[in-house]
Amino acid sequence: MPITVKALQKTGPDQPFRVTTIERRDPRPDDVVIDIEAAGICHSDIHTIRNEWGEAHFPLTVGHEIAGTVAAVGSDVTDWKVGDRVGVGCMVDSCGTCEECLADQEQNCLNGNVGTYNATDVDGTITQGGYAEKVVVNERFVLRIPDEIPFDQAAPLLCAGITTYSPLRRWGAGEQVSGRAKRVAVLGLGGLGHMGVQIAAAMGAEVTVLTRTLRKEEDALALGATRVLATSDENFFRDHRGGFDLILNTISADIPVDRYLRLLAPRGVMAVVGLPPEKQALSFGSLIGGGKVLAGSNIGGIAETQEMLDFCAEHGIAAKIETISVDEADATYERVVAGDVRFRAVIDTATFAGATAE
Amino acid sequence: MPITVKALQKTGPDQPFRVTTIERRDPRPDDVVIDIEAAGICHSDIHTIRNEWGEAHFPLTVGHEIAGTVAAVGSDVTDWKVGDRVGVGCMVDSCGTCEECLADQEQNCLNGNVGTYNATDVDGTITQGGYAEKVVVNERFVLRIPDEIPFDQAAPLLCAGITTYSPLRRWGAGEQVSGRAKRVAVLGLGGLGHMGVQIAAAMGAEVTVLTRTLRKEEDALALGATRVLATSDENFFRDHRGGFDLILNTISADIPVDRYLRLLAPRGVMAVVGLPPEKQALSFGSLIGGGKVLAGSNIGGIAETQEMLDFCAEHGIAAKIETISVDEADATYERVVAGDVRFRAVIDTATFAGATAE
Repeated sequence: MPITVKALQKTGPDQPFRVTTIERRDPRPDDVVIDIEAAGICHSDIHTIRNEWGEAHFPLTVGHEIAGTVAAVGSDVTDWKVGDRVGVGCMVDSCGTCEECLADQEQNCLNGNVGTYNATDVDGTITQGGYAEKVVVNERFVLRIPDEIPFDQAAPLLCAGITTYSPLRRWGAGEQVSGRAKRVAVLGLGGLGHMGVQIAAAMGAEVTVLTRTLRKEEDALALGATRVLATSDENFFRDHRGGFDLILNTISADIPVDRYLRLLAPRGVMAVVGLPPEKQALSFGSLIGGGKVLAGSNIGGIAETQEMLDFCAEHGIAAKIETISVDEADATYERVVAGDVRFRAVIDTATFAGATAE
Repeated sequence: MPITVKALQKTGPDQPFRVTTIERRDPRPDDVVIDIEAAGICHSDIHTIRNEWGEAHFPLTVGHEIAGTVAAVGSDVTDWKVGDRVGVGCMVDSCGTCEECLADQEQNCLNGNVGTYNATDVDGTITQGGYAEKVVVNERFVLRIPDEIPFDQAAPLLCAGITTYSPLRRWGAGEQVSGRAKRVAVLGLGGLGHMGVQIAAAMGAEVTVLTRTLRKEEDALALGATRVLATSDENFFRDHRGGFDLILNTISADIPVDRYLRLLAPRGVMAVVGLPPEKQALSFGSLIGGGKVLAGSNIGGIAETQEMLDFCAEHGIAAKIETISVDEADATYERVVAGDVRFRAVIDTATFAGATAE
């Protein structure tokens, strides 16, 4: 029998959130039912609801940074048991048989993975996300949240954590270069950037935060950066030419790509995880000289997401968050867009208890 | 005492070549004097002379695809002896002490390496290239040409060979993916492309040549490609979406970057070695989806250049060339620009003997 749960729902891009009930599917033999404890608010949720990434399927519940406990398991599930601390990220299913899935890269599934919300599920329904009391997910897409990390601080790791961990790992932020730590610059200090700084520092990199102003300097240093540089400084690009081995670009705005590539030392990499609205202008010469690399990155596979969670637990890092109640979601969206949240807002789903479903 | 040799010289961008004499420096203790047997004509030579890459220092002798025999060595030279078959590529000196030089990446020397021509040498003179009877080069920048490769077929390897070998090696053209050969596309079938095809095929890749038309199909197959696809076909980009693991872009023209990136499978790489005149328009989304990579590459280090020469000898590959005499240089430049040479023109420097120096 389907499971009826309270959820935050949008009925259109300009409508306020409402608390209502939605149905989760009757668990299949390979499903896990999760009591959600915390759900992070990712900028992607806002882009989706505002139809900035195509047309959303309303009514819609978003949220793909989900942490909670296992409430029930299907008959074939052996890896999970009731009470386990678990999480769900941006995907809830994939074919499992293509080259990418077999290589633990489900985020690239050649047959199309199923997003946690606003995606067409294998049964033809539209997936509904984590701003809810429970979720039902295929066991392969459940992550184990280490005991050391509280649910609310863990939830954002499922998207912001893996989005920054994966490129930092792929491009060797923790590897030495010529006997010294890699010089990693994190561009932007929002939900993504604040995880990138912590993870890169924990990997052993020398981390610099690049932001427009020095307003967030104290925060950045507390997160593990050794310094903060203001990109608005007129001499910034001149003074730091060739000064970085890896730049993690977490911002979604247009950037002067060639100038940023000149900040890289030879064989340096700029990894981009933020999607600017417009095409960027790039001279191939900026890549050819010094054999530089411009690389995209999109979350990470399930195995790597688990590796990231374990890494965060081992190094005592997690998301820095503000907890909000379900009735604060609309106001919080405005604050997220204004860059006023440090660094991630997380919905305390216990507050559904006091809300009346429409 | 300086060495006087015959050379092909340009006195200005619109002047014809003239045979004249130039002076090579009195060999230092760590220098090698080389009797040049063959000098390849690289498109870079033409760009330089035509002031398309900044202002050239006239009068100038170009050429950085040099093959010959050792004629004399300085008093401290122990690695080379008279009669050795050797080559010189795009560099003739570097600091030898920076991180990049110590990592065998002299092409990225942080203190600036010395180009084989039109560059300021350590003694303040302007370097003069290989369209000449002899050259004097620091021993560290001399390569060994395997006995299996004739001088004229070896010369272009020193630039076109390493320019394509280095990115193919770096990005794993010879590695298996999911138990199959990598699908490598070589975009353009000129001097660079024809080496890229041979090297990628010898590494074990499945090689496709992408050209505007099928005019060069027979050549491409003979070089080791399994097929040729015409990029002018209206369905090309649709039909081959996701079909390649690695694209080696050897052309110097503007390309629709996003469309080419869609030809890549997830985690695919487009390596660019050709420099289009304009900035290219790129959506970061084309890189983020599938975690794709856009990478520049610029020749390669000395150790890797030697590795490439040995690889070519081992696999029985070399440049496919037309040999020309010194008096054909001007006409050949026109043919190179028109794309009418298959695939590299090489000056037979023995023909200096019959030319009178002005």
